[in-house]
This record gives sequence, structure tokens and C-alpha cells, in this order.
Amino acid sequence: MVHWAFLLQKAGTQTEPLKMANQIYSTTPRSTWNKGVNPDLDIERQNKSFDVEKLTNILDGGAEFTQKRRQIESIIYSDPVFTLKSNYFMSQNQRYEAAVQKAVHYKKLMKQRGWKEDGVEQNYIYRALAGDTAFNIHSVFQRALRSLGSEEQIRKWGPLTDNFQIIVTYAQTEMGHGTYLQGLETTATYDASTQEFVLNTPTLSATKWWPGDLGRTATHALILAQLYCSGRCHGMHAFLVPIRSLQDHSPLPGITVGDIGPKMNFEQTDNGFLQLDHVRIPRENMLNRFSQVLPDGTYVKQGTPQSNYFSMIVVRVQMLPSEVISALMKACVIATRYSVVRRQSKIKPSEPEVKILDYQTQQEKLFPQLARAYAFHFIDKSINEFFKKSYQEILNGNAVSLPELHVLSAGMKAMLSDHSILGAEVCRRACGGHGYSLLSGLPSLVTKVTASCTYEGENTVMYLQTARYLVKSYLQAQPSQGSLLQTTLPQSIRYLTSTWTDRCLAQKAADFLSPAIYIEAYAHVAARLIRNSAHKLHDLTSSGTDQHVAWNQTTILLVQAAKAHCYHFTVKTFVDSLRKLENEPEIYHVIKRLCDLYALHGLLSNLGDFLHDGYMSGAQADLATATYLDLLSLIRKDAVLLTDAFDFSDESLNSALGCYDGNAYERLFEWAQLSPTNTEGNPAYEKYLRPFLKSNQSKL
Amino acid sequence: MVHWAFLLQKAGTQTEPLKMANQIYSTTPRSTWNKGVNPDLDIERQNKSFDVEKLTNILDGGAEFTQKRRQIESIIYSDPVFTLKSNYFMSQNQRYEAAVQKAVHYKKLMKQRGWKEDGVEQNYIYRALAGDTAFNIHSVFQRALRSLGSEEQIRKWGPLTDNFQIIVTYAQTEMGHGTYLQGLETTATYDASTQEFVLNTPTLSATKWWPGDLGRTATHALILAQLYCSGRCHGMHAFLVPIRSLQDHSPLPGITVGDIGPKMNFEQTDNGFLQLDHVRIPRENMLNRFSQVLPDGTYVKQGTPQSNYFSMIVVRVQMLPSEVISALMKACVIATRYSVVRRQSKIKPSEPEVKILDYQTQQEKLFPQLARAYAFHFIDKSINEFFKKSYQEILNGNAVSLPELHVLSAGMKAMLSDHSILGAEVCRRACGGHGYSLLSGLPSLVTKVTASCTYEGENTVMYLQTARYLVKSYLQAQPSQGSLLQTTLPQSIRYLTSTWTDRCLAQKAADFLSPAIYIEAYAHVAARLIRNSAHKLHDLTSSGTDQHVAWNQTTILLVQAAKAHCYHFTVKTFVDSLRKLENEPEIYHVIKRLCDLYALHGLLSNLGDFLHDGYMSGAQADLATATYLDLLSLIRKDAVLLTDAFDFSDESLNSALGCYDGNAYERLFEWAQLSPTNTEGNPAYEKYLRPFLKSNQSKL
Repeated sequence: MVHWAFLLQKAGTQTEPLKMANQIYSTTPRSTWNKGVNPDLDIERQNKSFDVEKLTNILDGGAEFTQKRRQIESIIYSDPVFTLKSNYFMSQNQRYEAAVQKAVHYKKLMKQRGWKEDGVEQNYIYRALAGDTAFNIHSVFQRALRSLGSEEQIRKWGPLTDNFQIIVTYAQTEMGHGTYLQGLETTATYDASTQEFVLNTPTLSATKWWPGDLGRTATHALILAQLYCSGRCHGMHAFLVPIRSLQDHSPLPGITVGDIGPKMNFEQTDNGFLQLDHVRIPRENMLNRFSQVLPDGTYVKQGTPQSNYFSMIVVRVQMLPSEVISALMKACVIATRYSVVRRQSKIKPSEPEVKILDYQTQQEKLFPQLARAYAFHFIDKSINEFFKKSYQEILNGNAVSLPELHVLSAGMKAMLSDHSILGAEVCRRACGGHGYSLLSGLPSLVTKVTASCTYEGENTVMYLQTARYLVKSYLQAQPSQGSLLQTTLPQSIRYLTSTWTDRCLAQKAADFLSPAIYIEAYAHVAARLIRNSAHKLHDLTSSGTDQHVAWNQTTILLVQAAKAHCYHFTVKTFVDSLRKLENEPEIYHVIKRLCDLYALHGLLSNLGDFLHDGYMSGAQADLATATYLDLLSLIRKDAVLLTDAFDFSDESLNSALGCYDGNAYERLFEWAQLSPTNTEGNPAYEKYLRPFLKSNQSKL
Repeated sequence: MVHWAFLLQKAGTQTEPLKMANQIYSTTPRSTWNKGVNPDLDIERQNKSFDVEKLTNILDGGAEFTQKRRQIESIIYSDPVFTLKSNYFMSQNQRYEAAVQKAVHYKKLMKQRGWKEDGVEQNYIYRALAGDTAFNIHSVFQRALRSLGSEEQIRKWGPLTDNFQIIVTYAQTEMGHGTYLQGLETTATYDASTQEFVLNTPTLSATKWWPGDLGRTATHALILAQLYCSGRCHGMHAFLVPIRSLQDHSPLPGITVGDIGPKMNFEQTDNGFLQLDHVRIPRENMLNRFSQVLPDGTYVKQGTPQSNYFSMIVVRVQMLPSEVISALMKACVIATRYSVVRRQSKIKPSEPEVKILDYQTQQEKLFPQLARAYAFHFIDKSINEFFKKSYQEILNGNAVSLPELHVLSAGMKAMLSDHSILGAEVCRRACGGHGYSLLSGLPSLVTKVTASCTYEGENTVMYLQTARYLVKSYLQAQPSQGSLLQTTLPQSIRYLTSTWTDRCLAQKAADFLSPAIYIEAYAHVAARLIRNSAHKLHDLTSSGTDQHVAWNQTTILLVQAAKAHCYHFTVKTFVDSLRKLENEPEIYHVIKRLCDLYALHGLLSNLGDFLHDGYMSGAQADLATATYLDLLSLIRKDAVLLTDAFDFSDESLNSALGCYDGNAYERLFEWAQLSPTNTEGNPAYEKYLRPFLKSNQSKL
């Protein structure tokens, strides 16, 4: 590693360090070094087999978007308020304070520049800040207001929230109630005598728990509560409740509110708790587009709140690129760059230590994650297109695609978050000890993205919702129920009624590079598992088991079926997206390898499912393995460029390990010295260590 | 949830909260509540099918050990210095300071009470403190001194370290070098003119990085460095180097030392960095039991440092119960208790919300982890017995079992850590949002145990070391190489030469409750994969591939083979351990179910391996699945008691979610209010929020 110039300077630079009890380290002249691009990384970027910039443009959706994004990034990164650099050294309170400062600052910036809240600029700022900002739930309220509020309510509260005259959180989850919304305990009881709702937290488990911005920021909360009027419960409705004084931010009477304390990540967010002690709000504060309570307490329903259902889909679709896929991509960037800079051990004893990315086992760790990152990017784009198309249809009064869209968003939310969490963690561990240092950036990516398996719908529940739809669709498509129905299956589950061969047709290793071969294999497995689930349910109920108990006794199988369905969908969608790249043959070629790897990795990781009924043989599995291993070594050459194409700046990666220039060790050493463990002295020495040592030494 | 008495008190207790800008929450009279045992948990402990105390005694190794452990725990928990309660609210610096305080305090306590460093008391203290203490690497030095030091050196430095007159760290890992020790760059060059070694850090990547106690605590370091004398390099040797002044703790001349900064966990440990700039130490400071440098620089080797090799095994064996298995056990305790207190959704619409542990999917998450925890406990005991037996043999000059012991410790370290990490994380996620709160105790368990896949030998490397031994043993056992050799295979790999049926003999679901059936299935798979690896290596080299390149190209398969071997070993060892419980039929019965579940969970998770060559059929897999599902529902009844038997006190669990009385929500609410996010005020309001809101509101 001869490129570190400081090595040449340092011979004989022995200096006397300062002597101070609390001094932790001494800096010597050796801490100045060359910071060119690490040659071990540099060489990876030579002999490009494709145009990296062109791939970046494709990922961004066009060169003009790349340009726009970089423009925003340069504005953000030139402003010291937006730095993320000291994040790893801050307490939860400091992180919160910095996030509020950033949020206030960028909201002003957006206003100055005339950027819209729902425009691309907002997305690019969010990406540049790595989500490290406040007021994120405010926009969830804005969306809920527009879906659930009357025109009058939108006119009244829209401008107040758009201009941040009030800050609103969305308070749904309770301490004892999450995904099962019917179980929420908070009550809103209508009092006709004063024309008010009385909001109340009847039990400890009814305490609102987790809403972002609630702990210390919000002035108002949109409270989801069970509505009681005209003598009975009408289910969950939304109520706008002032919770803090607009004068001095103190909690209003009857309000108990605070922060839920330390978490695995999201230190910047003041996730909060809230208890309401018979808090009264005017009748007008219930969002009443779809139902209202008349002054005398009569409950009136006005249509079905389909758009409420729809707004859940929106959040699930939106979180994928910004919260989930980006974390996986960043983890891939960091781990791949580090793996060509880190050398360890030898392949041949006579040669120097090799880059760890040259080990087959390291490729096996990282490349399936890289393939996932690309797969998920294209899948997300595809879901978004479907989403936009359906949205237009729904606006035009045609909600036929809503069930499919709902299930797709649930299943993809579960699968993409599960696999992104897994992938980010594989990348982290692939960096050994340094992957355990916060300064690598990897632990924060993992601990943050891991929350996505719970929020916006717990993943097991999401899979089971998907499975319910699949089983229902399968039963509907049975010829015995009328052959006409068979043609009505939506696109994403049409494979359930397709005719397939009983045996995989692959005869040689290269056959596993054929999407037709592997898509059919996935379809076969998914269809079999869905069929088995339906049959098991039928068998159980036929033998007298209560249908709900039967459902519970089938859930492990149902989750397995839903996962197989989701996997099939992702493989098929990746293949479909690939076709659009055919006019860029070099890029097509390199992404095709990732697509094949994605499909074969999933196949080999779930091999039992493919072998179970003899659809594939062990010999065919060996052919797939051979192809898979070949792909790993082919992808090796392009790996760094493929991660470069994601175009994450060093600032947003915030990683000492994954910097663009590959000078991982230099940066690690430099950053470590800025840690409070090095700058704040060592009071433990004076208090405990010194007396202990002195007392022991006196016995000499 | 009517048992919370406070609910009855609170109607009409609306009080005016204090009005203060920085006040985050107001407490109302409702915060007093009953703290009896939660009836939802209480009922789980009734109708015991086995004696929990007796099982605890078995886990402890006898009733007298349970008593001893509880005695130590009561001493520890009665002393406020040892509290872990505020850990979740402390900064890294505070955690370090508290750990030093605890270490100093308990070392004094041990001296007062006459407890030995290597006695059970030390282990019980460590368990009670959940490892949250300092000076842990000091004992690694003590062990190294006794293995590698001469009698004279032991006489000189032994008492100094035993009495903590000096504190020593063990500095091996470098920034650029970990598992591959031959790559270490730090040099120790002998200068015959002064009879000194010159210790030097020639490059940045040679900086010592990670040693515990190094950052801020140690006065000395045992430095592993490449020895240069008489004109050439003699490889890695150990040198005792003073690094901090015994007067004022300042770094000595030529020493650059500090803390490596924030990590994913281990905040209490000052993992450090160290650079040496031509630091001189006397010739006597090289540990010289097995080699020494004479005054004139002649290098003299004295035997093979087999015990160095052995001390690595010791650490790997010792870390399993204290660092790895205990984390998995605690995660099981917390998640299981919470899962019978948390109710969510309904199985039958007509009935109340059910305990989440009644869901098949929740059982599928938690019970395999519980089975692992028991499996790993018994496997650890078994390895320890083998270890003690081998140790005696080695002392008597018979090192024949050393290779097997080495491989066993490497493979089991890798597998038990991998699966414990996975298991702890499954438990964490099974607790939904609350599992993401640090106050649940689960994130810390996960982020701490996850380090064990890297330290003391990176797991992929450990699996490959295991595989190398397996392939070698397989080849040695081939009849073509002489049939006599066949009988010499060590116990743990004797299955390689056993004769098995070609097909699994199971004909009905209950056959999968027969250990003979599933042990054979595991043996079959492991033997097949080892054989395949050997053949692939042979094929590659036969077709002209360099043997080292061939090895690299086979490593994915080799890791798979090693994992299958390890799995077989764990299943077989769990079954063997079970036999010792036959005289306690009730306990035998309940642990047998866990053993069966452990075996079937592994089989179904790796089903492709069992189906691949037709050893098992899809129909047999379905039988195994049926048995597996039955076991889940059978274990349900005993689940809480099985976790109670681990006998972790609330203090060492330090979990608001997993408390013994099951009052999870009460404790979560109480603890959250102690968080600095609630007690330190909200300066972000005055600084940023207030001006922002006021300025926006003024536009009204």
C-alpha cells in the first residue's frame, strides 16, 4: 500500500507527546497523508464495459433528472447546516435538535426557491439529507386531510399546515395496538349538549405510542379514535386535536405527552406518547368527508372511505425507494468499495494478499445484494407506474384494480423490506470488524432500515393479507366455479391459471440464463404453494375445524405461499423491466447478469420448494448452481462501477469505509479522533482508575 | 385488561398541567397503578407439566450451583454501583465510566471475599452484570502470559497483573489485518547494540485497532508483531510494551493511542487504536517460552507453541455461554413473556383479541429459537467436557485430539454465533414496534451478540477451516488410501465412513420424532456435501486448475458442507445430552420436544439439501412438516416456563418488555419518562421551532 505518502515522511519523526492526565492520544506528524484515489479502487474503474453515467441517468429516470438531483445536492452540501458528519457522535437530543434545525432551514429554502412539497426537489433534498430531518409526519396529516377532510376542512386547515403555522402529527398506533386497527382503544364520545367530542385514553395500553414529531414538536395531533355517538360505537374516525399551546408549546389541559425514549435508530425523530384525559374539541374537528355527526348526535355515513384505504397504499409505495431500497443500495456501495481496498490472506501462497472481493465467498455475500438493489429499483418503478395508472382510473370512478394494488403494495412492502434488511446486514457483516464501527455507516443503515419490517404494516400480517387474496383468487379461478371467471384474474396472478409443464425443461447450465425457464419455475412453485394452502384450508374445515382456527393452523404455509408469489412477481417484473433496456446493449448486458443472478439466488436459497414435487431434479439444481457461480465471477469485473452508478455522494453515504476515493483507513483514523471518546477527556481515570492503580501499586 | 387498578381511579381526574416551555410531559394521577403479576402471564405458569426449579438446577449443573449463583446475584443487585438500569440513557463516555467503576468495585469485592479470578463466582458476577464491565482483556493477557511466557516472566509479571498494579491489553488485530495473522505489519526489530526490540508501526494499516481496554484504560499492551532479527523475519511474536505513564496515565514517548470511536454496541468498552513510532523495550519483554532472541541477535526456537493454538480454542469455547448463548436465551425470555401479555387481533371474530403467542406464525418465530437456546446450552456443556478431557491429555503429552478440538471450536463458534444472532433478531422482530425500543432490551442483545460473528475468528473463515479438516479427513478415510486408516476417524466425523441407507426410512409423521431418523438424515446430507466438495476440488485440479484457485472456486460449496457437518454435530449432541435426562421423565419429555423441533426446523429450513439426491421425498417432507407443526402447538403450553427456567433476573434482563411480572406496558411507560429526551428540556423549541412557528403565524 505504497500510495500513502506519509509512510515515506515518517522515519525518525519520534516526537515527545504532551503529558496530560486526560489526554487520550497524541498526534504525530504522520497524520498527514496523500488523499488521491486509492489505486486499488482506481483500477476497478478502468476498462469500463458500460457507460456509468448513462446507467445513472436510467436509474434517475432521465439525464435531466440526474442533473436536477445533482444541482439540489450541491446546494444542500454547500450549506453547513445540512452536514451529517457529526451524526455518529451525537446524543439523541442533539440529533433531534439538528434535525429540527435542518427541517426549518430547508422548508425556508424551499419557499425561497419556490420548490413544491410534492415535487422532485423535496425527494432529492430528502435523499441528500439521508432522511435526517424533522416534520416528516406532518405530510402524512396533509395527505389524510385531503383524503378524509371535507372541502371546508381542507380550506380551513390546509393553508395552516402548508405554511407550518401549526405542526401536526398522525396519532394512530397505541401502546397495545398496532396493525389491528379495530383494536384501538382511544375513544371520542360525542356530547350533544356542548356539540363537542370528548377524546379520552381509557387504559394505559390505549396510550398513543410511536407517532413521529409527537414527542416534542407537534402543536396538533390527528387522533384516530373509536367514535361513540347516538349510543353506540361507529368505529375508527380521525379527530384534529390541539395538544400544545401555540404561545409557549406547553401541553394543553388534559394532555400528557412526551418522547418514548431511546430506540435502535431514528434518534432524530421524536417518536412520542400521548394520553388524553377527557379532552374536548369542537364537533367540526372530526374529519368528515365520509361520515359526520350531526349536532344532535346522529351519525351520518357518506360513501365508503376508499381513499383512506388508498392512502395506506400511497405510504407503502412511497417508503420503498426513500427508506428501504436506498439503504440497501448504500450498503452495497460501501461494502463493495471496501472489498476492493481491503486485502486479506492469499489465494496462492506465492502471490500478495488479495482484495477480499476476489474471494468466491465474498462475492456470494455481496453480489446477490447488488442484484437485489437493482431488482428492487426496477420493481419499484414498475409498481409506481401501475399505481399512477390505477390512481387515474380510481379518480375516473373505476376502482377495479384497487384490490390488486392493495395486495401488491402489501406483499412488495413486506418482501422488499425483508430482503433489503437482510441484504444491508449481509453487506455490513461482509466488512468484518470495520462494519461494526458506526463510522463505516453500515450499522446505521441496518438499524434504520430494519424498522421497515414493522412500520406501515407488520410484514407477517402483510404476507397473510397477500395470501388471503391469492387463495380467494385461486378458488375463484377454479373451473368448477364457472370457467368464465378464469379470464378475469388480474395480470400479477394470471399465472395461477396458466398451464405449465410438470418438469423444468433446463438441460444444460446455460438454460438457466433463460428468463422463460426461471420465471416458469417460480410460477410453478408459487401456484403449487397457493393450491396447497387452499387445499389444506379446505381439508381442515371439511373435517370440522372452525374456519378461523383452520386459517390460523395454515398461516405458516400461507406465508410461504405469499412469499413465493412475491418472489415470482419480482423476478418477472425485473425481466420485464430489462426489456426496456434493450436499446442500450452494453447496459442491458450487465443488468441481465444481475437479473439472472437475482433469479438463481432466490431459486437456490429456496431449493426445497423447487425440488419438492420433482419439478426440478438435483441434477438441474447443480446446473443452476454452476450458472450461478459463473455469474458471480462475471459480475466481479463490473461490481464497483455498478455501485458507482447509484451516484450517492460521500456526504449522503457518510461512511469512512465507503468513500468514493477508497481511502477507507485514512478516513477511519481521522474520524475516530474526532469522537467524544477522544475529545472529552477521561474522568474515569481520576475518579476510579488512578485510585485503584495507586492503591494496588502501593502494595509493591 | 381490567387488572390495572389505575383505570378505576382515573375517571374525572382532569388536572391542569404545569405550563412551561420546556416541559415535555405532564404527569397525572393516573400514573399510579397496581403491579401484581399480570394475569395473562400468571395463567401461563399454572398447571406446570414439569418442575421449573429442577430444570434450572440442571441448566446450572446442580442445585448447589443455582444456590451459589443466586447468592452472588443478590450481593450484586443489592449494591447500587452495579445497577444497569440507566444504561439505555447513557452516552458512550458515561457507559465507559460506569463500566470502570463497576470493574474496580467488583475486583475489590472479589478480593474481600476471597473469590478467585477463574472461579465460578467470577462467571456469576459477569452474568449478573450482563458483561457490562471493564478490564475484560486483561485476563486474555494473563492467559497468554501463562502460555507463552517463560517461568521467569510469569514470576515477574504474573503478580503485577493479578493484583492490577498494571492493566494490560492484548493488541493483535490491526486496521488492515484481522483473521489472517501472517499479514500483521507491526514490526519488532532487534537492536543488538542496546539489547532492545524496536517496536514500530510502518504503515497506517498496521495501526493496532479494536483491542479492548486499549483506548483509555491499559497501562501496557501485549503487542503481536513480526520479529526481525539476524537479518530476517521470524513471524509473529508477543512483546510486552508499556504504553501509558504509571504516574499520570499519559501516553509514553512514541505512542499514539486512543479510542476507535462509536460502535454498534460495546459502548462500555474502550476499544482502541495504537501506533508505535520506534518504541524501544528491553530484550526480556518478548514472551519467550517457545523462542527467544539471544543478546547477539541469534534466534532460538524451543519447541512448538501448541498452547498458543490452544489458547485460541479456550477463548472460542469460553465466549459461547457468556457472550453468545446467554443473549439468545434472554431474547427468548423477553419475547416469550411479551407474547403472552400482548394481545392483537382475533382468531375467531366472536372472541376477544388473543395473545400473540397463540398465532402459529408467532410460534414459528419464537419456538425454534427457544429450541436453539436449549440445544446450544447442552452442546456447549458437551464441548466443554471434551475440552477438559483433551486438556488433561495434552498436559500428559498426548495432543491427538487437538485437531478435532480446534475444528470443533471453530465450527461451533461459527454456527452457534450465526444462529444465536439470527435467533435473537427473530425474537426482537417478533415483538413488533416495542422490539425496536431500546427499553425492550432486545436491540442491545442483538447489536451486541452480532459482533460475535467477527471476533475470535470471522465465521466464514471458521467454516472454511472446518471444511479443510473435513475434506482432508474424508480423503484419508478412503479405502484406496489403505483401509486401516478408516477406523481412526475421530468421533465427531466418524459418520463420514458409516454406511447409511440411500433413502430416509420415515413412513409416517411420527417417524420424525425418532432421533435415529433425523440424525441419519443430517449425516447423509453432511457426508454428501463433503464428498461433493472433495470431488469438485479433485475435478478442478485434474483439469489443470491451480490447487489454490480450485480451493477458492469451491469455497461456497465447502462452507455449505461445513455448515451441514456442524448441524449434524449439534443435532447428535443434543440427542446425546437428552439421554442424560432420562431419569427426570417430565423434564426429559419437554426437552425432547425441543430437540425434535430443533432437528426438524433445521431440516425444513434446508430442505433442498435433503431432497437433492432423493434421500428424502416431497411426501416425507410433508410428514416432517406435519410433525413440526404439531410440536409448535405442544410447546406452546410450556413456553413461558421453559424461558423462566433460564432464571435471568429482571436486573440482568434490563427489559421493560420482558419483566418477570409481565407488566410490560407499565414499565415501558415508566422508563420512557426517565429518558433524557424527557428530562433534559427541549432547547430546539426556543432555538428553531418557536421562531419558525411565530414567523409563519405572523403571516396569518
